[in-house]
Amino acid sequence: MPAPTPYLQVDLARMRRNVRDAAERAGVAMVALRPHAKTHKSVEIARLQLSSGAAGLTVATIGEAEVFVRHGCTDVFIAYPLWLDDRAAGRLRDLSNRAAVAFGVDSVAAAANAGRLLGGTDVEVLVEVDSGQHRTGCPPDDAGQVAAVAARAGMRVRGVFTFPGHAYSPGGAATAAEDERRALAAARDAVQAHGLDVRVVSGGSTPSLWDTDTRTVTEVRPGVYVFGDAQQWELGTMAPEDISLTAVATVVSHAGGRAVLDAGSKVLGADRAPYATGFGRLLDHPDARIAALSEHHAVVDLGGAPLPRLGETVRVVPNHVCAAVNLADSLWVEEHGSLRAWPASARGRNG
Amino acid sequence: MPAPTPYLQVDLARMRRNVRDAAERAGVAMVALRPHAKTHKSVEIARLQLSSGAAGLTVATIGEAEVFVRHGCTDVFIAYPLWLDDRAAGRLRDLSNRAAVAFGVDSVAAAANAGRLLGGTDVEVLVEVDSGQHRTGCPPDDAGQVAAVAARAGMRVRGVFTFPGHAYSPGGAATAAEDERRALAAARDAVQAHGLDVRVVSGGSTPSLWDTDTRTVTEVRPGVYVFGDAQQWELGTMAPEDISLTAVATVVSHAGGRAVLDAGSKVLGADRAPYATGFGRLLDHPDARIAALSEHHAVVDLGGAPLPRLGETVRVVPNHVCAAVNLADSLWVEEHGSLRAWPASARGRNG
Repeated sequence: MPAPTPYLQVDLARMRRNVRDAAERAGVAMVALRPHAKTHKSVEIARLQLSSGAAGLTVATIGEAEVFVRHGCTDVFIAYPLWLDDRAAGRLRDLSNRAAVAFGVDSVAAAANAGRLLGGTDVEVLVEVDSGQHRTGCPPDDAGQVAAVAARAGMRVRGVFTFPGHAYSPGGAATAAEDERRALAAARDAVQAHGLDVRVVSGGSTPSLWDTDTRTVTEVRPGVYVFGDAQQWELGTMAPEDISLTAVATVVSHAGGRAVLDAGSKVLGADRAPYATGFGRLLDHPDARIAALSEHHAVVDLGGAPLPRLGETVRVVPNHVCAAVNLADSLWVEEHGSLRAWPASARGRNG
Repeated sequence: MPAPTPYLQVDLARMRRNVRDAAERAGVAMVALRPHAKTHKSVEIARLQLSSGAAGLTVATIGEAEVFVRHGCTDVFIAYPLWLDDRAAGRLRDLSNRAAVAFGVDSVAAAANAGRLLGGTDVEVLVEVDSGQHRTGCPPDDAGQVAAVAARAGMRVRGVFTFPGHAYSPGGAATAAEDERRALAAARDAVQAHGLDVRVVSGGSTPSLWDTDTRTVTEVRPGVYVFGDAQQWELGTMAPEDISLTAVATVVSHAGGRAVLDAGSKVLGADRAPYATGFGRLLDHPDARIAALSEHHAVVDLGGAPLPRLGETVRVVPNHVCAAVNLADSLWVEEHGSLRAWPASARGRNG
C-alpha cells in the first residue's frame, strides 16, 4: 500500500484509454479537443493529453495556467470570466511571453477593463455566452457588442465559448447540446456582424460531449472524461468499467450493522447533485451507496452485498472527481501492479 | 491584498476572543477543553488554544497528530475509531515516545486488534459510543465489554467518548446534549462495572457545547468555535459578529443580474446541510445567499441589497469552515490592518 488510506488511485490503462478514445473521436469529428485540466491538476496527465493530440489545455484560473505553462504547456485557455486588476494583468502578460494565452469576458465592462489593462498585447479573449446553465456568460445576442468593445480597446478576439453545464441532469445532455449549438451559433453570428473574425467556437462538457454539434462547435473542453466519477456513472455517460480514479478506503467500523469507511468528505468532496443516489459509490459493489458522509467517515449501505471485513480496503467512486482531486496532494498511479505518485501540481491554485 | 482572491482571512482579534471565551467557560464549568484541531489545522492556532488553557488537542487522524506533535503538542487524542495495521501501530508507538496519545475503539474486534498491536505500550484507548448520531460508536451498554477486551489485551483504557453530531439540526442542541449525557453515563457505568477506572468522559460539539452536562462529562472537544461558519450562524449557536474566518472573493460577473464570485466549492467546500439556506453567506449582507455553487463560481442572490460592483471584494462565510480550511494552504491572518500567512500545516493529512 503506497500511503495510509484514504488515498486516490488511478488505473493508468483505463485512464490512457479514456484519453485516447476522446482524442480519436474528436479527430474523426474534426473538432479540436482542449481538455479541462482542472479535473486532474496533473502535469503528467496533461502531457498524455497533449501527446495524444489535444490542441491545448483549458484551465479555470491564472494560477492553474501558471503551473501548466511552467511545465511546458504552450497553449492555455482560462475558460473563466476573469475580472482583471493590475496584478492579474501582469501575470497574464508574463504567461503570454511563453504560451498562447486566452481568457473569457462576459460583459462590456469586463471587455473594456481587459482592453485597458491588456490592449495591444498577445493575450486573447473569447466572449462567454450563457447557453442555459445560467451561471456566467452574456446573452448570445450581446456577444457582438462585447467583442466589439474588446476589439476597439485593442484586445485580440479569438471567438466565443459556453459551458453547457445543464447537461448535468438525467437525460439532459442532448437538450443541453442543442442549447449550446443555438447559443454559440447566435453568438458567432453576432460577433461576425460586427466585422470580427470568429476563429474558435468552443463548447463541450463530459456528459454532452458526443452530442455536441461539430458543424457549429470547433473546439470541445471536457474535463471529467479522463477519470469518470459517480455523477457520470449515474447520468449514464460513462460505464463503471471506464472509471479510472477511485479513493482507496479502509473499513474502520461496523457500527449499526453498516460499513464505515475512513474516506470522508475531506477526501471525496461533499458534492451531491440533486440526481445523485448517495454521496458516492463503491466500484466493486454497484448496489452499495454512501448513505451518510462526514469529514472522515463514509457510512455505506451495502445494498444487500455482504459487509466487507473490518480492515478490508474498498474502492470508492467519488460523486465529483474534480472535487476529490482538489483535496489530494498526489494521485497514486497504478500500472502492472506497481504504484507511483503523480503530484496534483495545480491543486489549490484557485486564484 | 495578500494573495489573489479567493483566499481565507482570519480576524485575529475575534478568533482570540472565541478561544479565550471557550477556555474561560470551560474553566468555570470545571470541564477540560480539548479543542478539535481538524477545524483549523494550524500550529499557531493550536498554540493559542493550549496557552489559553486547553488540556490537549483532539485530532481526527494519525497524520494530524504527527503534525501537531512534531510542533510541540504533548497530548493528542485521535477521536476516531482507527482500525490498526502494523504501520499505523508503529506510527502511534512513535508518537507515544513524544506525547500522550490516545485513540478510539468502538468494537470488541477493534479493541482486540489494538491490543494485539499495541498492548503493553503507553498508547491509550477510549471507547466510542453512539449517542444518537448513528455514525460510529458502540451502544453505550456494550462499552464495558469493549473496554474489558482492550484491557485484557494490555491496552490502557482512559475512558469513554461520543460525538453528539445530531446537535447539528435546528433546535437540536439541547436534545443532543441530553442524549450525550445519558449515553456517556451508561457507558461510564458499564466500564466501571468491569472493574475498570474511567478517568475521562469526553463529549461536546460546538452547537451543543454549553448544553453539555458537566457533571457527567469531564472533557469537551469543540472544533468550529474558533472560527464559526454559516452553519453555526443558522443554528443560532454563534452570532455573525463572532465569525472570525471568511473567504475573500471578487465579483467577476453580473450575469443574469446577480453577483457571481470567484470563490467556488474549491475554496468554500460543497457542504450543504438540510437546514442550510444556501451554499454560504456574505458577512456584510445578512440577507444575501449563495444560490448556486460550482467549482469556481458562487452565484449570489443579494436578497435586496445593492449589487456589489464588478471587481469589488466581498467576505463570504462558508457553510462548514472545516471543509474550507481543508482546501487552503494558508490562512491569511489580519491584525491591526496587516496580514500574514499562517500555514494550514495539517491540511490533507487524512490518513
